[in-house]
Amino acid sequence: MAKCQEGIQIMEKLPESDPEKRAKQSLAKIKNKFIVLSGKGGVGKTSVSVNLSLALANKGYKIGLMDVDIHGPDIPRMLGLQGMLDMNENKKLLPKSYSKNLSAVSIESLIPNNDDAIIWRGPMKHTAINQFIGDVEWGYLDYLIIDSPPGTGDEPLTVAQLIKDARAIIVTTPQEVALADVRKSINFCKTVKMKIFGLIENMSGYTCPHCSKMVELFGTGGGEKTAMAMGVAFLGKIPFDAKMVSCGDLGTSYQDQYNDSVITRAFANIAERMANLVAD
Amino acid sequence: MAKCQEGIQIMEKLPESDPEKRAKQSLAKIKNKFIVLSGKGGVGKTSVSVNLSLALANKGYKIGLMDVDIHGPDIPRMLGLQGMLDMNENKKLLPKSYSKNLSAVSIESLIPNNDDAIIWRGPMKHTAINQFIGDVEWGYLDYLIIDSPPGTGDEPLTVAQLIKDARAIIVTTPQEVALADVRKSINFCKTVKMKIFGLIENMSGYTCPHCSKMVELFGTGGGEKTAMAMGVAFLGKIPFDAKMVSCGDLGTSYQDQYNDSVITRAFANIAERMANLVAD
Repeated sequence: MAKCQEGIQIMEKLPESDPEKRAKQSLAKIKNKFIVLSGKGGVGKTSVSVNLSLALANKGYKIGLMDVDIHGPDIPRMLGLQGMLDMNENKKLLPKSYSKNLSAVSIESLIPNNDDAIIWRGPMKHTAINQFIGDVEWGYLDYLIIDSPPGTGDEPLTVAQLIKDARAIIVTTPQEVALADVRKSINFCKTVKMKIFGLIENMSGYTCPHCSKMVELFGTGGGEKTAMAMGVAFLGKIPFDAKMVSCGDLGTSYQDQYNDSVITRAFANIAERMANLVAD
Repeated sequence: MAKCQEGIQIMEKLPESDPEKRAKQSLAKIKNKFIVLSGKGGVGKTSVSVNLSLALANKGYKIGLMDVDIHGPDIPRMLGLQGMLDMNENKKLLPKSYSKNLSAVSIESLIPNNDDAIIWRGPMKHTAINQFIGDVEWGYLDYLIIDSPPGTGDEPLTVAQLIKDARAIIVTTPQEVALADVRKSINFCKTVKMKIFGLIENMSGYTCPHCSKMVELFGTGGGEKTAMAMGVAFLGKIPFDAKMVSCGDLGTSYQDQYNDSVITRAFANIAERMANLVAD
């Protein structure tokens, strides 16, 4: 009898062999899932993902940051995370820990030479993203923030299929060329039935460090107008700051260094909305 | 006998049924092929593709501009091209004509509602790109300039496989996060055996319109250093100009409006190098 029970215990401990089921087991322990999307590249999507994660972690929430940008994974550099992922006794990958409340997983932490290009077609990327969920020991999380590559290709489509309750945060810059692509992202979410949490206008104006006057690098206000026109919540404007670029390059937290800046307050406000709305 | 000859003529006029062969027939009429790549999105790759095409067209060359960015096609907007592509009597698509010397093809000119998202996985994109080459009546061209999405995914891989003699022009901004991704693009070209024509550093500094002082938005010089370190030709630095953003939004040519600007001269210089090196 004892032996039988022991046998059952061992059976329960054996890892689930179906990858889709393993992913479901991981997701069941994560309360809220957000995917950060953009229509166009270079609008600061990764920077937004990192800074929202930091702002939520600062509020005491447990955060996992998953980088599903297979061809241009920038999360480890921006968080200053080095080295490869370790494995635990259950053969699950351990996310890289940035702080007590924030850990991250990226393809960058799985390839020995960071300058190697990942030349994978769609189906390989689908498999990789499934493993990022099911084969990673995320543990119990308040928020999983997913940073995706720009556009409406394989990676966000895979996330939409695997994580049915993921909500989208869409990032744009204010110029029309970017807004045209944002409308595609919004329609993508509608097509795949993904809830849109809201839209952020990034790189919205810049203060010249020499004369302190405001410069509209990419215009301003276009994101808010587009959000209204498309019936999507507007989460806020974030100005451009060259210090944010250098913090990203150095892997240091802009929010810690400039904790009373307009940008830090903007991220704290959006994090507050994420915490409030999700608590409803 | 006459009938027989007529029969042969008709046979010859029948379109080639094998899509790969149709693509080869199109490519045989195009002297030089360039693909514009970037590791990271938002570095101004499309803006560079458009402006190099305009600079070469201004020199009197016949240019085709092919937009293989399926999820975020910006070429038609930047050139102010509207409406759908027409078909000729051979059932081939006619590229949209911008000027006597420049015409373009994009997925945007094939879908009725421009805000619709194209939610295609890799194999569909491969088929579409093959058709952009073989089912389009490009005619005889001096240069085909191919604008690709950022990264090293399906679209540049398909171009590398279909157009063996395509040369890569890699665009980056100067910050380290972008340069890390550029090294991946260079390694991608080496892996798929695509010749690299050179690297362009875009958004390299900005002159404040209020105080006329130089601001390094994303740093400066990183592109040139990376090109040297990786053994790739450096094609030049192009500063940021908000007027370039608004010209892109309006679909008007920056080079025509600001024909003596630093940026216009920079593009003319790179076009000159493309013309000279290819003539060797």
